[in-house]
Amino acid sequence: MTEHAAGRFITLEGGEGAGKSTQIARLKSWLEGRGHRVTTTREPGGSPGAELIRKLLVEGPVERWDGTTEALLHFAARREHLRSTVCPALKRGDWVVSDRFADSTLAYQGYGHGIERGIFEQLYKVAVGDFRPDLTIILDLPIEIGLRRAAERRGSETRYESLPHDFHARVHRGFLEIAAQEPKRCVVIDATGTIDAIAGAIADAVRNRLGA
Amino acid sequence: MTEHAAGRFITLEGGEGAGKSTQIARLKSWLEGRGHRVTTTREPGGSPGAELIRKLLVEGPVERWDGTTEALLHFAARREHLRSTVCPALKRGDWVVSDRFADSTLAYQGYGHGIERGIFEQLYKVAVGDFRPDLTIILDLPIEIGLRRAAERRGSETRYESLPHDFHARVHRGFLEIAAQEPKRCVVIDATGTIDAIAGAIADAVRNRLGA
Repeated sequence: MTEHAAGRFITLEGGEGAGKSTQIARLKSWLEGRGHRVTTTREPGGSPGAELIRKLLVEGPVERWDGTTEALLHFAARREHLRSTVCPALKRGDWVVSDRFADSTLAYQGYGHGIERGIFEQLYKVAVGDFRPDLTIILDLPIEIGLRRAAERRGSETRYESLPHDFHARVHRGFLEIAAQEPKRCVVIDATGTIDAIAGAIADAVRNRLGA
Repeated sequence: MTEHAAGRFITLEGGEGAGKSTQIARLKSWLEGRGHRVTTTREPGGSPGAELIRKLLVEGPVERWDGTTEALLHFAARREHLRSTVCPALKRGDWVVSDRFADSTLAYQGYGHGIERGIFEQLYKVAVGDFRPDLTIILDLPIEIGLRRAAERRGSETRYESLPHDFHARVHRGFLEIAAQEPKRCVVIDATGTIDAIAGAIADAVRNRLGA
């Protein structure tokens, strides 16, 4: 499922309230201004089937699933998202920008809930194979600021936000460790600046890494 | 999640319309008549969370998920079912009788949809660990008879039944091969006889194998 030609796959990662949605809209405009066709999408979800799985993950009580069950559900949704949305768009030559991808599973279920890295890697191989994003942008924000922002827009999708501070601290550290382990794929961007400053830093990263 | 004391875990397997529900009710009565406390359950499903995943698996169009995504969803539901229903019941000392378990995933997604056995085994290890049923009863019925019976009770759960004859033939062969590979755990019972005859054969198997 992982062959693609001209398109590029960019993922945005980070904790709650890091500003991913805003920056994805900005990145889309910027890429379109440079003549690319852009598909924006999100995880968990991003295709009709995967959005059904999303509802099971982001709603309901925290104790509904343990970390391993969550990881299985995330990878089921991810495979369906790739099959129905991401891979067809890349085949058309689109640039695909996704709000979260597998790094979120490693950060939340791995670093956050403590499932072993080996389990993450096995599930990645089963569900995704050798496919990797061309570029991953990690928006880095102190967790207090992020959780406050997330609380302000609170809807029904509160299952992760309601986890304790320690959990979010582990997730935050997880994203930074992932970036340090895969510096060719990942860029960490300070998300405490203005929307324009962050958008500029993201555009620079995309230009430098992918020659957009 | 897999420690249990006095209880036993019995699974019933087989294709569509093999008579599993009827026989589970009979087995429950028989076991209770011998002084056991019995929990009956089913897969996919068997706990509130797992039943939500069941709906995604048994309803909707056939092409909604590919075989690997189905396997991921089945194992997510299975882990939740074990955590919330099966393991607590076994810990209480109940005998647990489940309508389907992991052999169905191997038969339907493995033999039926062609996902590799190695993938099944990795997912089993991730989601279930070393836990195995104490006894698995495979109800064996020619697929024509089974599909006709299943069609007569047709509700909204038609996603698997609507697959082609070839698919069901592979599933049927799969169950028999699983039984041949694990003869200590599995018993194949001819399901073409009367309800009483089948119930008698199941009771004999449980008595002989588990000393019920």
